[in-house]
Formats: sequence, structure tokens, C-alpha cells
Amino acid sequence: MGGLGEFALIRRILSRLGTPAAADVLGPGDDAAVVPTPDGRVVATIDVLVEGRHFTREWLTAYDIGRRAAAASMADVAAMGARPTALVVGLTMPSASDLDWLDGLADGFRDEAAVCHAHVVGGDLVRSDLLTVAVTALGDLGGCAPVTRAGARIGDVVAVAGRLGWSAAGLRALQSGVTAGPLPDAFRRPEPPYDVGPQVAVCGATAMIDVSDGLAADLGHIATASGVRIDVDLDALRGLGTDGVGDDDLLTGGEDHALAFTIAADVDLSDVCTTIGRVRAGTGVHAEGRPIFGGHDHFA
Amino acid sequence: MGGLGEFALIRRILSRLGTPAAADVLGPGDDAAVVPTPDGRVVATIDVLVEGRHFTREWLTAYDIGRRAAAASMADVAAMGARPTALVVGLTMPSASDLDWLDGLADGFRDEAAVCHAHVVGGDLVRSDLLTVAVTALGDLGGCAPVTRAGARIGDVVAVAGRLGWSAAGLRALQSGVTAGPLPDAFRRPEPPYDVGPQVAVCGATAMIDVSDGLAADLGHIATASGVRIDVDLDALRGLGTDGVGDDDLLTGGEDHALAFTIAADVDLSDVCTTIGRVRAGTGVHAEGRPIFGGHDHFA
Repeated sequence: MGGLGEFALIRRILSRLGTPAAADVLGPGDDAAVVPTPDGRVVATIDVLVEGRHFTREWLTAYDIGRRAAAASMADVAAMGARPTALVVGLTMPSASDLDWLDGLADGFRDEAAVCHAHVVGGDLVRSDLLTVAVTALGDLGGCAPVTRAGARIGDVVAVAGRLGWSAAGLRALQSGVTAGPLPDAFRRPEPPYDVGPQVAVCGATAMIDVSDGLAADLGHIATASGVRIDVDLDALRGLGTDGVGDDDLLTGGEDHALAFTIAADVDLSDVCTTIGRVRAGTGVHAEGRPIFGGHDHFA
Repeated sequence: MGGLGEFALIRRILSRLGTPAAADVLGPGDDAAVVPTPDGRVVATIDVLVEGRHFTREWLTAYDIGRRAAAASMADVAAMGARPTALVVGLTMPSASDLDWLDGLADGFRDEAAVCHAHVVGGDLVRSDLLTVAVTALGDLGGCAPVTRAGARIGDVVAVAGRLGWSAAGLRALQSGVTAGPLPDAFRRPEPPYDVGPQVAVCGATAMIDVSDGLAADLGHIATASGVRIDVDLDALRGLGTDGVGDDDLLTGGEDHALAFTIAADVDLSDVCTTIGRVRAGTGVHAEGRPIFGGHDHFA
């Protein structure tokens, strides 16, 4: 690690993260950070990315990895209807990682957080043979009730904001040697629709989830938690894809971090999302009358 | 992993964690947790433990690892003068880990959190060849200002609550084949003085730190951040050790998670801590007139 000790490395990272703008934020450099929570509640979630499992350095720069890892956690915050406010990051990394690489990673965290006007407020750095990135994201509900997976009501529509299947198709492209184009770019740099989470929460979304395991599996979580059946309209779903994105990508590709939610049918959100299904009585997720299964299970 | 899929594993873990008592806590099982922050601020910190670096399964049960990992993060919260309220846990672990082992780990997180009336409110679980445990702890300041490392004033006394050097001596005992006794037990099960953090914050502590890198290094952080010199009284320090704990353990052993703080000399806290030094004009940390160095640097 360029001969720098841990404390020097941390100082180097901190110098790239910038200082949180708000005077009442205590950022990195102490035992813990202090983040304002005017709402009187805080939303908290953690996602862990592991090299070789979630990403390889062959296809992703350090900057891409930082942005992806931050996006994965901040999308979970948005899926509660909240606005991401702060990140704390736990890194394990080989000592052979060079300083430019570490700089890129820190810049990636910083820039993805900045999309939400959030900041990296703390972290931990440990030498390890394996690169792992654990990102905890905090968020603010702004006075709204959290939108869980359990509130879908029979008669609600199911809507999706963001891209579906692009990242999965992009991974396939990279695996086949195609490194340029919108699909590989979508794999490298997911663009979760962060603003849509709080926006549809205010409009009365009844259930919401970050699409990280694939739409079929994640709608399955809503169906199970809410005790309902969800019918997906494949034709409508295809509008969220693009050239090279197949039905399987749409239904099982998760790393775009789209937001899927349910809401009363008379709420017009056509400018921010696409209606792709309906909540019915019953169980499971169905498309064209057949039960669909999807997502991936790390321990399967 | 016993043939269970990720979702089944997570359900199994959740069943052991119990339900947070407060009705306004949204615990595990959704995209993110929601934790009350009546203070209008939240304290947040992350610690990552890596197998082979911070612990081995030879000397620690899964339950011990869970308790140690939770303790490391909650001690950081206490060192800000705050009360730990919630944990989110990111695990990477080999699929060969058996279910009993995972149960023990979950129980360890739960029971250490319970010492502070805190709860595990969320997590992530990823298969990996390497076992790593990332614990984010959240905390509540209860209306007090956070106690940073930067507030020590010339003339303050330096005090420590908790054990020093026990864990380091216990590790040495384990390495030499001694597995029973108070020192190995201290390595397996640190007992951070959680309550002392908020207590001395109310009493006007000017700077505070969790002793995780060793007392010399951690007082060094306070000295640097506060722009002062700290003189340590080795004789007073020896009262925090026990049979088998040497001066080097006292000055460089960190994993007991003691709390070290500075406070005006006229505040009587003799029932909760031991005065071990003095804040003076100058720089660095000194004992018996000599500068002392300590702690370890993971990337050195």
C-alpha cells in the first residue's frame, strides 16, 4: 500500500471526501460520526460487496466500485421512501492495492453520495487478502411513514422507476468481450431513481422495494409480506429494457437498483414510473398467467 | 450452509434476534431499518473484523465473535458520549459454515447489544471464502454534545474506565496454549464500560476515545487532535492491569475497549474510572519523561 501506514491512508482518503456542508454534521476522523436526524428517526441499511462475487477489477475501475457500492445501499434507503443522508464504509483490502486505486474508490463513494447530497461520514479500513466493501447508508424520512414491503393492497397497481435488466445484459456483454456501449455502462454505473422513493412515498405508495435480487424475486417479497398476488404485464415491462435486454434480464436482473412499488390505481405517476402490473387476491408473482420465479440466492 | 438458501438463512437468523421492544422501531426484514432518534441526531460508526487478522475460530466460538464484533462498534459509540441503540451487521462467510455456528454468531450480536438495551435492526449476508464481520452501531446522545478527540484542555486529568492490557495478555496466553483463566476470558469477551461514556459526557468530559489501537496510540490521537501533550503515570496505569499484564500490554493492548477521556481535575469520578495522567502544553504522549509509542497499524 505504497508504504503508507493505516492512519496516513485514512488521512489520504479523508482529504478526498470533502467536508460535509452542514455545520451540525460531525464527519470522519473520530470514534463515530454524528448526523442530524430532524425527523426524529433514522433509516439504516448495510450492503456488502465482495470481489469475485459482485464485481471484478477487470471490468470495474475503483471509481466504479465505489459508486456501485454506495448506490446499492442508498437505493435501499430510497426504497423506504427516505432520502439518503450519510454513508459509513467498511473496507477490507489487500495491502498491494495501490494508492491511485484507493483514491478512485474514495472518489466513487463521494460522487455517488453527492447525487443525493449525502456524505461519507465515517469508515474502517482493514488489510485482508480479499477486497470487500460494506456500505451502511443512513436516511431521513422527512416526516413520512416508512414504505415497507407489507402494505400492498388488492387493486393497487405495480409500478417501476429506473432501468431493469440493463445491468444483467451489460454483465453478459462484458463476459463476451464487449466493453463499450450503454449496457456495459449500465453494469458499471447503476443509476437508481433515488428521488422517486420519497416522491411516491408522499403520494401514498403502499409497498416498495429496491430491485436487487431481480424483479420476480423482489415482487415476490412484496407479495409474501403483503399477503397478495402480483400479476406482471410483460409487454409493459419490456418498455423498461432496451436492445439486448431479454425477458429473463427484465425479470431476474437486479443490479440496476430500480424501485418497484405499489400504489392506488388512481394516482397519476406516469411522469416518473411505468405501470407494470396489478395487485390481486392470492399469492405469488405471475406473468401471462404462469407463476414466475427469479432472483438469485447467494447460498443456494 | 446446510442446504439452506440465503432467504431461509436470514429468516433463521432473524428468529434468534428477537423483536425490538419499542413499537416505533422497524427492525430487520425490509430494505432498511428505521430507528428512533429523539435527540434529533444519530451517532454512527463501523468496525470490520476479519478472520485470521482480528480473530481465529480456534480460540473464539461464534458466540464470542458476535459479542466481540458488536462490542467493538458499540464502544466507539460510547466514546462519543452516546448510548448505543441499534446495530446493522454485514457478514461475508464461507458456505461451509454450519448452522449451529451461524446461530451462535447471531446470539452473540443479540446478547452484546442487549447489554446496552440495543437491537440488531438489519444486515446483509454474502457467501465468501473469507469470514468478515462488519458492524455498524448507531447511538443516541441524549441531548449532550458529542465528546470528540479534540477538546482536551491543558490542566485536565486523563482517566480510563475499563480494563487495559487484559485482552493482549489473554491473546498471548492463548497463543502459548493456556485457554482458561481471566486473561483468555478477557480476550474472548471484552467488557467495554458502555455506561461510562454518556456518564462522563454529562459530567463535562472534554475529549474521549475508545482504546482500540492501544492506550499510547489512542491518547496520541487525543493529543494530536487537541493540540496538547499527555503525560501518563505508569504507576497509576498498573492498577488497571492484573497478574500477567505487563507495561507493554497496558500501553499497547487495545482490544479491551476501555474508554480514555480527559476532564477538569476537580470533577470526582473516582467511582467509575482511574486517573492515569495529565494534559499539559506541548505535543505527544509521554511516560516517565520519555515519549511513548504504541498501537498497531494494519497497513504498516
